[in-house]
Amino acid sequence: MTRLLILKLGGSVVTHKDEYMSAHTENIKRLAKEIAEADSYPLIIVHGGGSFGHPVAKKHRIADGRVDESQIFGFSETHQAMVKLNGVIVDILLKAGIPAFAFSPSSMLHTIGKRLKELNTGLIKEYIDLGMVPVLYGDAVLDSEQTFAILSGDQLIIKLSNDLGANRVIFGLDVDGIFTDDPKLNPDAKLIETFSIGNIEANVGDTTHTDVTGGMRAKLSEATEAVKGGVKVIMVNAFEPERVKAALRGEKVIGTILTL
Amino acid sequence: MTRLLILKLGGSVVTHKDEYMSAHTENIKRLAKEIAEADSYPLIIVHGGGSFGHPVAKKHRIADGRVDESQIFGFSETHQAMVKLNGVIVDILLKAGIPAFAFSPSSMLHTIGKRLKELNTGLIKEYIDLGMVPVLYGDAVLDSEQTFAILSGDQLIIKLSNDLGANRVIFGLDVDGIFTDDPKLNPDAKLIETFSIGNIEANVGDTTHTDVTGGMRAKLSEATEAVKGGVKVIMVNAFEPERVKAALRGEKVIGTILTL
Repeated sequence: MTRLLILKLGGSVVTHKDEYMSAHTENIKRLAKEIAEADSYPLIIVHGGGSFGHPVAKKHRIADGRVDESQIFGFSETHQAMVKLNGVIVDILLKAGIPAFAFSPSSMLHTIGKRLKELNTGLIKEYIDLGMVPVLYGDAVLDSEQTFAILSGDQLIIKLSNDLGANRVIFGLDVDGIFTDDPKLNPDAKLIETFSIGNIEANVGDTTHTDVTGGMRAKLSEATEAVKGGVKVIMVNAFEPERVKAALRGEKVIGTILTL
Repeated sequence: MTRLLILKLGGSVVTHKDEYMSAHTENIKRLAKEIAEADSYPLIIVHGGGSFGHPVAKKHRIADGRVDESQIFGFSETHQAMVKLNGVIVDILLKAGIPAFAFSPSSMLHTIGKRLKELNTGLIKEYIDLGMVPVLYGDAVLDSEQTFAILSGDQLIIKLSNDLGANRVIFGLDVDGIFTDDPKLNPDAKLIETFSIGNIEANVGDTTHTDVTGGMRAKLSEATEAVKGGVKVIMVNAFEPERVKAALRGEKVIGTILTL
């Protein structure tokens, strides 16, 4: 499936991050329109948790694994929060003419030591082959070592990319890409159009001149394997109109392309 | 897992059947309280579609399989409707203190000629072993022969029962059980406390003196294999207080027990 595209929509893109369980419907609607206009299939969409999954998971410490009995409810509530956000997104995608289909990660997989080792992609492929767009998400999942875990959308897309042989992975973020410094603090920070993840891995060179912290570092760590496997990985700002559309179409777009 | 209980909550029990996408929250809350009080685990709950899944599936003729291109949206909309109903039910169960966990059938299985031939019960068993109560539902699923199909909750519970080795399956209905005639039309109709499904299969004898039509006949047809396998299958009225609770506890209750 060499033409497969995988689009990640970050939690900060599909939710109002500072408002508990508030979907950013305005942005989702614009993105749905862009995805429909891009008309680039086969496509899988994976979204993050934002103000749905994150606060619930944090409250119940799901990412830490099982620590007490009551967590069993928090684990389920985290999943419920993600199902609700997924429902909002899929409904909007359907209305925009995208044959989206909701897929529940916790119904189909578990992790081993927080890592997604096995993924039965057969069923997902059946949906894709019929022209549908599976819409998955970061989820609360069972873990063989620590009982509970959070499977990030980032880890999920890279596994999907590897197992299904995607040729392009697009991260839709709330920033333009990777900068030379934190653009919110340093007005002279420059967007890096082509970023070598080798530098990150070796922890040398460019890294002292780049703003790769927290979530971005985790994202790059997940993306490494895909880039090594020949997948084109690109980061774009999903709040800026037309960028996700251009990235889906394979057109030149403001953002950061990851290389080895 | 010899103590496993499986509870089916019919669509007419969890929704207002004549009101589009209206959950019967009052009844669900009472049932959640009864299930919590019964305190009988391990337990799997499966619910029907009622005014959520059925009207959408019917409108788009999903049960007939693929007939035209636009059906792809109706297929997804049917699933979305079921996800919404499932969300309402799981939220109420969690609030009642039942460690419910939403499971999406279309994310984990497909049918072959409308029949559920293979079901990976491994993941479901992981949830049960941790003390959780998987909550599944009748769903729009892919079918290897007719592309789309409706997997009924009835077919699903019997497959779960067989594959996981349940020892009791409880159908929560909007009637007391199987009657000698339609109780709504004939005031002299009597509840049959023990009903031999052998009579149905042979299509002889008692069947002329029983009200086994439509949905009930399909239910009995699904239940046959479970009864043959030694599973105790009982039908109770889920609108009558305390009956589901008694059935879960294995106490004597007004209803119909199926035998060979």
